[in-house]
Amino acid sequence: MFNYFVTGGAGFIGSNLCDFLLSKGHKVTSFDNYSTGNKRFLDLAKEFKNFTDIRGDILDFDNLVESMSGHDFIIHLAANADVRFGTQDTSRDLNANTIGTYNVLEAMRLNDIKNIAFSSTGSVYGDQEIIPITEDCSFPIQTSFYGASKLAGESLIEAFVTGFDFKALIFRFVSILGQRYSHGHVFDFYKKLKNDSSRLEILGNGKQKKSYLHVHDCCEAIYAAIENGTDSIDIYNLGTNEYVEVLESAKVISNYLSLTPKIIVQKGERGWIGDNPFIFLDTKKINSVGWAPSHSIESGILKTLIWLEENEWIFNERD
Amino acid sequence: MFNYFVTGGAGFIGSNLCDFLLSKGHKVTSFDNYSTGNKRFLDLAKEFKNFTDIRGDILDFDNLVESMSGHDFIIHLAANADVRFGTQDTSRDLNANTIGTYNVLEAMRLNDIKNIAFSSTGSVYGDQEIIPITEDCSFPIQTSFYGASKLAGESLIEAFVTGFDFKALIFRFVSILGQRYSHGHVFDFYKKLKNDSSRLEILGNGKQKKSYLHVHDCCEAIYAAIENGTDSIDIYNLGTNEYVEVLESAKVISNYLSLTPKIIVQKGERGWIGDNPFIFLDTKKINSVGWAPSHSIESGILKTLIWLEENEWIFNERD
Repeated sequence: MFNYFVTGGAGFIGSNLCDFLLSKGHKVTSFDNYSTGNKRFLDLAKEFKNFTDIRGDILDFDNLVESMSGHDFIIHLAANADVRFGTQDTSRDLNANTIGTYNVLEAMRLNDIKNIAFSSTGSVYGDQEIIPITEDCSFPIQTSFYGASKLAGESLIEAFVTGFDFKALIFRFVSILGQRYSHGHVFDFYKKLKNDSSRLEILGNGKQKKSYLHVHDCCEAIYAAIENGTDSIDIYNLGTNEYVEVLESAKVISNYLSLTPKIIVQKGERGWIGDNPFIFLDTKKINSVGWAPSHSIESGILKTLIWLEENEWIFNERD
Repeated sequence: MFNYFVTGGAGFIGSNLCDFLLSKGHKVTSFDNYSTGNKRFLDLAKEFKNFTDIRGDILDFDNLVESMSGHDFIIHLAANADVRFGTQDTSRDLNANTIGTYNVLEAMRLNDIKNIAFSSTGSVYGDQEIIPITEDCSFPIQTSFYGASKLAGESLIEAFVTGFDFKALIFRFVSILGQRYSHGHVFDFYKKLKNDSSRLEILGNGKQKKSYLHVHDCCEAIYAAIENGTDSIDIYNLGTNEYVEVLESAKVISNYLSLTPKIIVQKGERGWIGDNPFIFLDTKKINSVGWAPSHSIESGILKTLIWLEENEWIFNERD
């Protein structure tokens, strides 16, 4: 049994992971600044006596060091998790994701904690020519501030592994879907269609090909990798072995809502500056530790829609 | 003619580059905090009327923004340039090299300056299996805080290229030698032998294979790439098409000084934590813009020794 410390534990993925780890009998502390995390997401976790909820910010170093004391496995999820808005504030990803990750690592060093799992992103691959993308693909060129900040985080982790014998698991995620999902294209499309069911504006030409993973599959993959262990560093793609075009996904969502909106697309293969038009990750490595997803992309989208229908309060929490 | 702004312009490479650009008729401003830069290195530059010397720190953002105004090409060399001591202060490389580079980029954005050349390092490649290493080799794993901080700098530059139409040249250097050389193995060996000519202690087993480039060749390569231009981003390895073992280099240095010290090696193929035992970069890409080095490694080492003999004051400037 580990005593886990989950940064971003009140977020979408973090709260699901807290529930999952608690259900396996572990002790879990959530450390979250509640900037995008949500108290309601931890209602289930709070029913476990092994759970502790700390309000704190990874950029408040002294509090982080103190709060981390006594734990033996850090799962670092706290981040600015939206890839789209890096150019609006060029320092946001740097602060939240790069300096934040440095603080987590340095706090681990000061507390003599060696184990970390980190949520990186498929965005670090930039535009690769060979798809599906393997973990050891060609040296990438970054296309977003988000990807740049996460790659910097990965690199810092690797330096701590070499310098201080940390043991690290790095997960490069596709987009994650499922309960407590609170940003991304299903969220946006659902919200737009609730406001105006006659039309649906799509960012880019809609031909972007993306892969999506259900959050329960994501938690099981992370846990499978932790159980498998590492001597120094292991990097895993996390995704499904399929992808969908954004237009197909829009159709699934419209059909579920029994709507036939006019679909309005833009020119250009990218939905936003730095968007990668084809994200599809090779998942053989994570499959090799005995994990495979139990949800198809379509079933992940449908479960997400069901959760959004049952939890429309989420649309009032964020804009 | 460009109006160049050279961060770290009073440093080893920076001052040589200032001299070089001035000799080509350009306007040049050096921006340096003189933490490792040296006033004497700019004696020649100061003879040019097109030269301006500013004492400033890239971590002082407001001063950086103001000083950069009116320039049209940024050469960003200011950095903590020593790869060996990352574990002694884990924040040093992050601050000087990652946050420093972010400040330079953001100051460019605020000044509407689009062109940047950046001194990265072959250390970002970590331990590669295929040697010589090409720019598009396998996605690397970092082995040092220095490499991690420089890769983060590269990634930030790439995000600014995508987000704000910057045009960037990134140079991944091997170790540089030549006049004004003030840290590195030739410096260390010379200093040790001057203190005690009977013995020479080497970090690691001495079998490390490294490549070295003379600083004049380095300046010419950077200039050739600038003249060649870029539409968005070009990444170039800079090195020679040969390498030497550290033990061979020690012999060249001992022979030059007419000494026969006892060579004392350590166990292990790495000279320090995170040292890469074989650094040899493929330079076909920079060769393709019409550049080739004019110095062999041995001639670079010998010229460095001549300069050190003529400038022993440098050993009193640093420890």
